[in-house]
Amino acid sequence: MQQPLAGYRVIDLGQIYNGPYCSLLMAFLGAEVIKVEPLQGETVRHRDPVSLMPHPYIMLNSNKKSVTLNLKHPQGKALLRELVVQGDVVLENFAVGVMERLGFGYEALKAINPKIIYASSSGYGRGGPYAHYSAMDLTVQAVAGVMAITGFPENPPVKAGPAVSDFIAGIHLYAAIVTALLRRERTGEGCMVEVAMHDAIYPSLASNLGAYYDKGTVVPRTANRHGGLAIAPYNTYPTSDGWMAIFCAAESHWPLLCAVMERPELRDDPRFATNTLRARHMAEVDALVGAWTRQFTRAALTDLLTKAGMPCGPVLTLDEVADDPNLKHRQMIVELDHPAKGRVKVVGCPLKFFTTDGALTIDVLPAPSVGQHSEEVYTSLLGHTSAELERWHSEGVI
Amino acid sequence: MQQPLAGYRVIDLGQIYNGPYCSLLMAFLGAEVIKVEPLQGETVRHRDPVSLMPHPYIMLNSNKKSVTLNLKHPQGKALLRELVVQGDVVLENFAVGVMERLGFGYEALKAINPKIIYASSSGYGRGGPYAHYSAMDLTVQAVAGVMAITGFPENPPVKAGPAVSDFIAGIHLYAAIVTALLRRERTGEGCMVEVAMHDAIYPSLASNLGAYYDKGTVVPRTANRHGGLAIAPYNTYPTSDGWMAIFCAAESHWPLLCAVMERPELRDDPRFATNTLRARHMAEVDALVGAWTRQFTRAALTDLLTKAGMPCGPVLTLDEVADDPNLKHRQMIVELDHPAKGRVKVVGCPLKFFTTDGALTIDVLPAPSVGQHSEEVYTSLLGHTSAELERWHSEGVI
Repeated sequence: MQQPLAGYRVIDLGQIYNGPYCSLLMAFLGAEVIKVEPLQGETVRHRDPVSLMPHPYIMLNSNKKSVTLNLKHPQGKALLRELVVQGDVVLENFAVGVMERLGFGYEALKAINPKIIYASSSGYGRGGPYAHYSAMDLTVQAVAGVMAITGFPENPPVKAGPAVSDFIAGIHLYAAIVTALLRRERTGEGCMVEVAMHDAIYPSLASNLGAYYDKGTVVPRTANRHGGLAIAPYNTYPTSDGWMAIFCAAESHWPLLCAVMERPELRDDPRFATNTLRARHMAEVDALVGAWTRQFTRAALTDLLTKAGMPCGPVLTLDEVADDPNLKHRQMIVELDHPAKGRVKVVGCPLKFFTTDGALTIDVLPAPSVGQHSEEVYTSLLGHTSAELERWHSEGVI
Repeated sequence: MQQPLAGYRVIDLGQIYNGPYCSLLMAFLGAEVIKVEPLQGETVRHRDPVSLMPHPYIMLNSNKKSVTLNLKHPQGKALLRELVVQGDVVLENFAVGVMERLGFGYEALKAINPKIIYASSSGYGRGGPYAHYSAMDLTVQAVAGVMAITGFPENPPVKAGPAVSDFIAGIHLYAAIVTALLRRERTGEGCMVEVAMHDAIYPSLASNLGAYYDKGTVVPRTANRHGGLAIAPYNTYPTSDGWMAIFCAAESHWPLLCAVMERPELRDDPRFATNTLRARHMAEVDALVGAWTRQFTRAALTDLLTKAGMPCGPVLTLDEVADDPNLKHRQMIVELDHPAKGRVKVVGCPLKFFTTDGALTIDVLPAPSVGQHSEEVYTSLLGHTSAELERWHSEGVI
């Protein structure tokens, strides 16, 4: 099976997580991704100022080519124009206004290549009241309400640990680009697509917004309980070696759980007969379940509850996640030998494709060093000479 | 500008958040989405057993058609086969194995319509060691490590408040489907695509996994501090009316912040000269910044810091988010009159498109009642008679 994005070329100005996650998926699925980095390398590289290869860079830049380019130098701008001529997609996640100041707003890009797809992502999007806020995952989580609804009610608001605003924006950006490519295949026309981190994370508050609209009041932070405090059991419970998430998603799960707990009398207890009643006696329900779970290890409980068909999940620690057998089986944890770092674990492609020929296989190739492909791209693709490259190098262009 | 997915028809078996968010975006962008619901309505409707229209349903099912169908009835199966013949995409987020047991695995769907795109999403994907775990957003957050890295170090692990596993899977599913449609436009071939919630959320742990791989030890939960405890200031700070996220993303931000704080002497304090040094004195840095921020309101601080170019964001409460001016400007909060609920706020489309004709405009239409479009779809699209529909209704087929 040929990779679905084979034949497309992406001029990738992305940095840190949002843009790079988007272009990583494009590269996995067969697009030629030319990552255009400043001469000192992309921002995230500087989290390891010695190697310029911190793990987050290695994890999110597999299968890409790296070229260096000084976008403030006239000759650098000329080279970017040549790349845009050869490209299908230009993507970036600079602050709003940066591309225009560099002379590469959508009007300028379209004048260079009318069929180009220009993809732009920022914290709050263009034109709105927050357009010029400087945005990072932390600050978008604050403004978008993620913090307000995360954590224990007696403690201050807390962010979601993963960079959810960055990554959910990155995959929305991928979605917008591929939609635009599909439109171009059908109409012949390029266009501009835009994704704001703020917009992309907002729909995921549906449970909490729903409870607010339906009740007219804000439910306080509920820790690991249901966001609307409307379901029980729904929590994490103590075990002998950590925590276990258990969730009665349907009425049928309560009798099932009572049977696994060997407490058949609870099933018929009038306090617990329906979910509505259990939610009213949430503290008692949680205490009962927790008193039972603490006798077991997470693994024993997972086994017991899964065999019974109960929705549950052990709270895994980060080192357990880094070695997770399911993620390995799914090729989401991929080990490879990286020239700069040795044996490393990187992320695989979460979009899986199957045809009559079988599954699409993806070879994961090491993230490039700064400018590793400058010579290849500037000579083979753009037709320049080694003498020009040497001069540009000495002039701080590449 | 014509909507980019105009002309595609989606047979949508999605439920709750993951599948429905995916098909919501397809409907916004012009696909005809036929939502196939059980006779009693989709699972999430039962969060409001009276109206069958809880807000989360209303928020995520705009612009779709609803038909009822009993997939366990032979005549129900026959009608689904007829829909598949007319469809471009079949999507579902049932537990692994449900579609096969219903007789609608990919092989069966392909035999009905060789060009069909079959899109499947589940908690942990097919074939791996967790494939048969019953999965919900809560339990996937537990297993995927989201909980382990969220919260205060002195407290137990806690989930991210939003349903991040569900929604990030839903947008990955959209991404996979549109990629498959693009491939079909280019090759004429259908295929199957698959997304696991577990796979989709995993890359967003890049900062935390990176710190773990680079240091070889797990950094404890860091609340609102940097996941690797490597950046300062990076935290939420108290104000007179809530919390404020502030983040020195670059070295240049510290002198800027010292100037805004009117504490020029801190700029040259040897304890704070570089980010590395500030991270070493994190408690002192946080105390200094927090002592300053508590004199202001969030709004005054936002104004002061944003004007200075400092990355920051007020921690907004859920009711503030529900009324956010930027989300309204971006048409992410859309108000409409819903026949069942009156004036409601629903979500708009986070994928924005612009051509020379201007921005793509999307009319947001109310989520349907259970089976609102059964008659239209079964007569106009599939060519059945009203007499057949009456019989199937009385027989519990539709």
